Amino acid sequence: MTTPQLYEQIQIKKSFLCIGLDVDLNKIPQHLLTTEDPIFEFNKAIIDATHDLCVAYKPNIAFFEAYGLKGWQSLHKTIQYINEKHPEIFTIADAKRGDIGNTSSMYAKAFFEDLQFDSVTVAPYMGKDSVEPFLAFEDKHTIMLALTSNEGAFDFQTQKVEGKELYKLVLETSKTWKNSENLMYVVGATKAEYFTEIRKIVPDSFLLVPGVGAQGGSLQEVCKYGMNGKIGLLINSSRAVIYASNGQDFAKKAREEALKLQQEMEQILKTSN
Amino acid sequence: MTTPQLYEQIQIKKSFLCIGLDVDLNKIPQHLLTTEDPIFEFNKAIIDATHDLCVAYKPNIAFFEAYGLKGWQSLHKTIQYINEKHPEIFTIADAKRGDIGNTSSMYAKAFFEDLQFDSVTVAPYMGKDSVEPFLAFEDKHTIMLALTSNEGAFDFQTQKVEGKELYKLVLETSKTWKNSENLMYVVGATKAEYFTEIRKIVPDSFLLVPGVGAQGGSLQEVCKYGMNGKIGLLINSSRAVIYASNGQDFAKKAREEALKLQQEMEQILKTSN
Repeated sequence: MTTPQLYEQIQIKKSFLCIGLDVDLNKIPQHLLTTEDPIFEFNKAIIDATHDLCVAYKPNIAFFEAYGLKGWQSLHKTIQYINEKHPEIFTIADAKRGDIGNTSSMYAKAFFEDLQFDSVTVAPYMGKDSVEPFLAFEDKHTIMLALTSNEGAFDFQTQKVEGKELYKLVLETSKTWKNSENLMYVVGATKAEYFTEIRKIVPDSFLLVPGVGAQGGSLQEVCKYGMNGKIGLLINSSRAVIYASNGQDFAKKAREEALKLQQEMEQILKTSN
Repeated sequence: MTTPQLYEQIQIKKSFLCIGLDVDLNKIPQHLLTTEDPIFEFNKAIIDATHDLCVAYKPNIAFFEAYGLKGWQSLHKTIQYINEKHPEIFTIADAKRGDIGNTSSMYAKAFFEDLQFDSVTVAPYMGKDSVEPFLAFEDKHTIMLALTSNEGAFDFQTQKVEGKELYKLVLETSKTWKNSENLMYVVGATKAEYFTEIRKIVPDSFLLVPGVGAQGGSLQEVCKYGMNGKIGLLINSSRAVIYASNGQDFAKKAREEALKLQQEMEQILKTSN
């Protein structure tokens, strides 16, 4: 999927919501545990109930890997289901990968070719040759960590490198890499005031924004400072949507939560036009 | 496995060699491709031929993920084979993971519980709460990227943060984390002169050292500057050993390459005593 196509979907659905699929067997409705593939059944129900309200799904790869072979199988089924039933939806493998060149190539193959995701999240610590193998894929997107929403973000990301925070150096440096037009960035919502600075460096890029809601970030604030002329934001919500209820009504309740976010977004889109 | 047990193995085998299992179907002997599980068959043959010469195996997770479900299956079989046949060998999941706390917990579960690795490599960009969930596992080890051997290492790792290189800040900061005694570090061999500085910060930690041979690092130099009283080094070789030949004799040739490295190590151990 190209970024103009993603922007088009945002306009059609009046939403820039991304739903994170962090499926923990301890948190899903217990009646699903008797099915053959509880993780997939849960995802399928969530997708069926919310696909018209969001423009992206973000399976969190750790939550599949933790269940070993069965988890990997559920991941395959989940991404296949999205791609077949809802090819208009942007898919993000939240994997935070990154390694030396030939190894990053293999990760890119895993997520772009084998699993057919539209994008994958990567970590910047190993620099240019650890990210460029992902960028080499046409019409695929590489979403690099810039400023994350967790407490540990302050350990290194906001430390000053020659007078400038590391995350800014990461953003600036990445723009010089080959096929950098395929980059998007992870920017945590808990630090809305940072968006102004970030938009000076990457005015046109899409930003994937975790941390709205559960982690305390405000949607209004993020949009105020982070939105660009083509929206340029994908706001992620995981737990607040998918675990809205753990009863028989979980999918219905997930839809209600997603709808609230979509309606808030629709309002913001109206006002900003 | 505890670090004293690892040190004991180094003394018994007179080796601190780690063999990296980066199995690329385009590079392995073609006659294996007709078997049901070529990746596992290749690994099994390499392990059978080299287990007495090395103290660690390091499956590179990307090379399994790239082959999807089948690759994940081969990974399971490989780690099971090592753990059953050679429980004295230290196993490293080279995965470069790292995410917010609850997600890192899931990765830790995947590699320490489901796959039963002794250790996993992680990336430091997201800071303390992205690494501590790995450190919480008793008798398991978390090998954090400090200074890598690739070109991109100079993009951020060697940049000065308040007058000090980022990789040094990473090393120093990590020592303040909970259960930091379970940390080891990745330090590339291509920069032997850096080891003196690194040993000032982490005198006692094990360092996993890629980049000897193929990537140009010298074993002698690394040992001169990087060894401590309990050796404290695991020198990794991947391609130079496992792809020594791609004919019928590949396992024999891999053994010959591993033996050369082991003998060089034995000599160094003798001299250093």
